[in-house]
Amino acid sequence: MRNLVSLLFALALSAPGARAATPAEIVASAPASAWTDIAAEDLLIMEFGDGKRVIIQLSTQFSDAHVANIRKLATAHWWDGASIYRVQDNYVVQWGDRSEKKPLPDGVAKTLPEEYSVDRKAVEDRVTIMPSSDSYAKTTGFLDGWPVAMNAGTLWPIHCYGMVGAGRNLAPDAGNGAELYAVIGHAPRHLDRNIALVGRVVEGMEHFSSLSRGTQALGMYGPDQTAVPILSVRLASDLPRQAQPHFQMLDTRSKIFADYARVRENRHDAFFAVPAGGADICNIPVPMRRRPDS
Amino acid sequence: MRNLVSLLFALALSAPGARAATPAEIVASAPASAWTDIAAEDLLIMEFGDGKRVIIQLSTQFSDAHVANIRKLATAHWWDGASIYRVQDNYVVQWGDRSEKKPLPDGVAKTLPEEYSVDRKAVEDRVTIMPSSDSYAKTTGFLDGWPVAMNAGTLWPIHCYGMVGAGRNLAPDAGNGAELYAVIGHAPRHLDRNIALVGRVVEGMEHFSSLSRGTQALGMYGPDQTAVPILSVRLASDLPRQAQPHFQMLDTRSKIFADYARVRENRHDAFFAVPAGGADICNIPVPMRRRPDS
Repeated sequence: MRNLVSLLFALALSAPGARAATPAEIVASAPASAWTDIAAEDLLIMEFGDGKRVIIQLSTQFSDAHVANIRKLATAHWWDGASIYRVQDNYVVQWGDRSEKKPLPDGVAKTLPEEYSVDRKAVEDRVTIMPSSDSYAKTTGFLDGWPVAMNAGTLWPIHCYGMVGAGRNLAPDAGNGAELYAVIGHAPRHLDRNIALVGRVVEGMEHFSSLSRGTQALGMYGPDQTAVPILSVRLASDLPRQAQPHFQMLDTRSKIFADYARVRENRHDAFFAVPAGGADICNIPVPMRRRPDS
Repeated sequence: MRNLVSLLFALALSAPGARAATPAEIVASAPASAWTDIAAEDLLIMEFGDGKRVIIQLSTQFSDAHVANIRKLATAHWWDGASIYRVQDNYVVQWGDRSEKKPLPDGVAKTLPEEYSVDRKAVEDRVTIMPSSDSYAKTTGFLDGWPVAMNAGTLWPIHCYGMVGAGRNLAPDAGNGAELYAVIGHAPRHLDRNIALVGRVVEGMEHFSSLSRGTQALGMYGPDQTAVPILSVRLASDLPRQAQPHFQMLDTRSKIFADYARVRENRHDAFFAVPAGGADICNIPVPMRRRPDS
């Protein structure tokens, strides 16, 4: 067998030649104008365990009341000293106050509306439709950088890998944003329209996904396991200016994003013999990066 | 907020009452006749790191030549002392001889045919079709307990979470089964029909999915990381009889599996307000268990 490692490296790092470009190569060729800055008030920085850091982008399209609560909880340092107490394989990591007894700060709503979908017509002109069939909805696509599904009247965000939502109890309880989870497995799309999605991980996802799985029902950490302590959760906009991270996402209405999506659907680079002929919406992750000058 | 943990526990453990049953409750009610034994020669037991154990079911439906090589490699103890050297987030764990210099045992084929799909007509009478649309194929379903996709003429296995395949270099190289990988993220369906799938993890998946991610390109472990040593890989049938594990899978042509799949598509238990109206084939994992008397 030829040397697998060096071949794969060559494939990953080489410039496009006679063969077709890879998705990563297309993204690398995107003009600066195709990248959209993410505002500092939309970035949540979570530090836990032995100094691990995960950065979450808050949604500006969905779940406004949940996101407002989350901003207030971060500004009040409410999660400091809380924990990651649930890690269920192929499902979610969940964090917050496991005792559920810690009082919420003043100004944080205790109950929230069911922000599970939005009126499609109100956002239609900003949606990019994807052509592949979907197992759950008539149509899928992207709204201002977020994966969405649609039927005739409504549009809703999708539980793809890395998406962050607000835990709740039995319906119709809608949670309050104090208990959050991130998807660490195959997209649990049956949760769509049943829980408020509030954001997604933009950096450090591997620190969530590699956590030890909980040994109790639903992946709860058992008495023989140590819940992972949360050191701090901060809004980037609450940090000193020089400490703020800067991220960008690829504009899902740009020409280069369309090129990228097409290649995710049908790869013709050297590894692939049979192009897929389509792509599940969660297999078209929206490219994110640190702002180049940051 | 009511106590989330105790409520979720109650939900998971309670018997079906006025509300609809959960998928787990339906599986728990399956008659013994709906469970199919997995033969000892189809189980691969892999021990690595500090005594972690993963058990893999080898395919009896696909990739016969690859699986024959894998059985011989295990019987020759070829993987003992090899390593897990690649862990790419939301993609794969890969193991084998990273140097690619270790000679293959006598009788192990160095190159193999492209066993990526089979003739649909030859297996049609054993296929259970699922009704949901799919982003990649006209039809999906199960063949003797394995998730499959189909077009008019051919049928192929699917890269769901936990599936195991045989690494290869650039097409048309088909690999030889010595380098294996397992899916640890959202189903990378673009690999379907491009790599030989040879099995799936039936126990211990969390030991793969929680491994530290590699810091180099493609998730390769870097010089500052220690590759995870493989202690042993054995066929269950090569072990003393009393040391052999015994597993069963739910018969995908049984009535109870059909009930289970319907509920995966539309959940009406207490948590869910909006049933999904469908299920991606990889969100209908085939139930597996230890044989009750074992």
